[in-house]
Amino acid sequence: MKKIKLAVIGTAGRGTFHACMLSEMDDVEITAVCDVYEDRVNNAADRIEQITGKRPNIYSDYNALLKSEKLDGVIIATSWQTHIPIATAAMKNGVPAGIEVGGVASVDDCKYLVKTYEETGKFCMILQNCNYGREEMALLNVTKKGVFGEIIHAQCGYEHDLRGIARSKENRHYRLDHYIHRNGELYPNHGLGPMMKILNINRGNRMVSLVSVSSKARGLKEWAKNNLPPEHHMQKTTINQGDIVNTIIKCSGGETILLTHDTTLPRPYSRAGRVQGTKGLWYEDNKSIYIEGESPDHEWEDFYEYIKKNDYEHPLWKEYFELGLKEQGHGGMDYLVLRAFIEDGIIKNRPPIDTYESALLSAVAPLSEQSIALGSQPVEIPDFTHGKWLTPEPVEETKYSLN
Amino acid sequence: MKKIKLAVIGTAGRGTFHACMLSEMDDVEITAVCDVYEDRVNNAADRIEQITGKRPNIYSDYNALLKSEKLDGVIIATSWQTHIPIATAAMKNGVPAGIEVGGVASVDDCKYLVKTYEETGKFCMILQNCNYGREEMALLNVTKKGVFGEIIHAQCGYEHDLRGIARSKENRHYRLDHYIHRNGELYPNHGLGPMMKILNINRGNRMVSLVSVSSKARGLKEWAKNNLPPEHHMQKTTINQGDIVNTIIKCSGGETILLTHDTTLPRPYSRAGRVQGTKGLWYEDNKSIYIEGESPDHEWEDFYEYIKKNDYEHPLWKEYFELGLKEQGHGGMDYLVLRAFIEDGIIKNRPPIDTYESALLSAVAPLSEQSIALGSQPVEIPDFTHGKWLTPEPVEETKYSLN
Repeated sequence: MKKIKLAVIGTAGRGTFHACMLSEMDDVEITAVCDVYEDRVNNAADRIEQITGKRPNIYSDYNALLKSEKLDGVIIATSWQTHIPIATAAMKNGVPAGIEVGGVASVDDCKYLVKTYEETGKFCMILQNCNYGREEMALLNVTKKGVFGEIIHAQCGYEHDLRGIARSKENRHYRLDHYIHRNGELYPNHGLGPMMKILNINRGNRMVSLVSVSSKARGLKEWAKNNLPPEHHMQKTTINQGDIVNTIIKCSGGETILLTHDTTLPRPYSRAGRVQGTKGLWYEDNKSIYIEGESPDHEWEDFYEYIKKNDYEHPLWKEYFELGLKEQGHGGMDYLVLRAFIEDGIIKNRPPIDTYESALLSAVAPLSEQSIALGSQPVEIPDFTHGKWLTPEPVEETKYSLN
Repeated sequence: MKKIKLAVIGTAGRGTFHACMLSEMDDVEITAVCDVYEDRVNNAADRIEQITGKRPNIYSDYNALLKSEKLDGVIIATSWQTHIPIATAAMKNGVPAGIEVGGVASVDDCKYLVKTYEETGKFCMILQNCNYGREEMALLNVTKKGVFGEIIHAQCGYEHDLRGIARSKENRHYRLDHYIHRNGELYPNHGLGPMMKILNINRGNRMVSLVSVSSKARGLKEWAKNNLPPEHHMQKTTINQGDIVNTIIKCSGGETILLTHDTTLPRPYSRAGRVQGTKGLWYEDNKSIYIEGESPDHEWEDFYEYIKKNDYEHPLWKEYFELGLKEQGHGGMDYLVLRAFIEDGIIKNRPPIDTYESALLSAVAPLSEQSIALGSQPVEIPDFTHGKWLTPEPVEETKYSLN
């Protein structure tokens, strides 16, 4: 079997994790790894070698890597603002790119990503693992079967206590810098990615405008005061990023999407999901669904029991349970999104999250910053498809397709 | 004992309910009732007579009632847009007013309400029963004790399947007309009233601006299609009111409040509560609280068990349990808000929801319409106190006080 040859650029925790998971696949070879930090990249190479017996080539410069290696694809897991510059460099070298999720900083970068795709024919797919979450896929299945009726409203978010990033400069982690300098919906991906599929965004529907409102910023500073020494730089650092940022997106179909960023206060984890239509609704936080005429009158029922009772588990997950779950990657969805990138993306050139969608999802972060900076004015969401969303090509049903 | 003399203006379901509950109180006499519909007002008089043995005077014109009766207060339970005109007429006749909740249509009306209070010295109190809900009061208690730390964000709403109002023209009900002609956060009261107390609004804090976003309107028409005959007027009626309207309010203290109006889709009832601070948060929809250092790490715990364990039940509710609950009025809170109106309002002239707050809460409905009409532009929320919120007078602790 000819193996798919991949490189991994960026070998902090997430990049190395991807590299290892990919190295365990029979049909994949990681031929090269790249990072500006020598210790990190050597560690990644060591771990790959442990798995495959073969040491990948090591680079500190991704341009050198792209010039020297013959690749079928690259995985980019660098700091947020470098995802698109590296992806476009790869695409211009004839290599499709899978980029980690993260708070892209520039709408122009997103436009350039699309332009590069249209000029090179090489795609960029955001590796939005939550699109392949078991709950999200069951929900997609339920939605496409029309169980909710006409969809009216969705909610989602990233509600995750990340206050430990106050320590992150020592760890060469990128997120803190964004919180110091930016204020917006910095991490729209996990929540919004699946909702865009549910709402047929770029396929007959479009996100038209958004408005964002930010609360004050207190959580990180209070955490630093209580948990870090008085001489720590965080005690003198000002944080711009509000603790709670809510964004409401309006779609051309008349649907609304409420998106919440909540990462600097103490709380249990949630992706804050809600999908609501003319026949019923689903809530993540009480793990429940209500469908008129099926559920007891005006009473919630357990979501997974409802899925089981009606056999609404997504076919991909049914197959995956039989195959045996790769539980180490966020309960299995990391494995699925990497397989989707390889099987539907690289092999079939039909990435289930395409370049237009990757650009759009990424643009929400800088657009929300603009709205907040303008006093919560509504801002236009660009149509990256320049009109193609109106008459989308029929999508061939593939194993990993999300449409 | 000299009885408190009250009149009830507006005798649809809610007005008659109030009149009966008040008639059962030893210290209250309903001396008059008023309605434009003769059948309704006679029914209310019949029911009062059954309770007290004494028939109240009957009016069809509230001005005639205000001129003829010697009153200590009026309860106004008419259609939404008439609450303030009738309240100001009462105040100018020297009578304090209690107004039912509802979607006031004009910001100028709210300003005029305040002006009338300042000129007459007679107050208007919105009878916001949910401020006296058991859960809301326990939550207020928890907040004031600092359990959540510094409050950062609150959520609330009115999520109640009211699609049956499509039938309401026959019932002479008022809500449908608003849904036909308006589009906004038409019923902010139940959710926002308690949150305004939690956020110290008008007492060192202020709601500065809001932005509202509306979804499309589908629920009422679909319900009418499936449940009403083809010749019913609803089949030809256009509905303006979006099924889901989300409003985000920004406070001068930097807090945000997310408010949801969701009344035309099938769903279980919720007031969509969330209170979140630097030490933890409460969610209504999963009936849970999480407090850092107290709750199991990043895990929710049951709200009422937490309240019980820590003895956080509000003192008013403790007393009320001993007295014996009046469960017929929305679990008891209707009784409490009427007693608050009488004991703190009429007798002490210290209404726990004062005229400024009543005006402010009411203004949210027309302000949200303006925001939606302007394409979700942020709109200014007037400071009805004209600066007094900055240096509020100390409030004497009364039995029903909410500060």
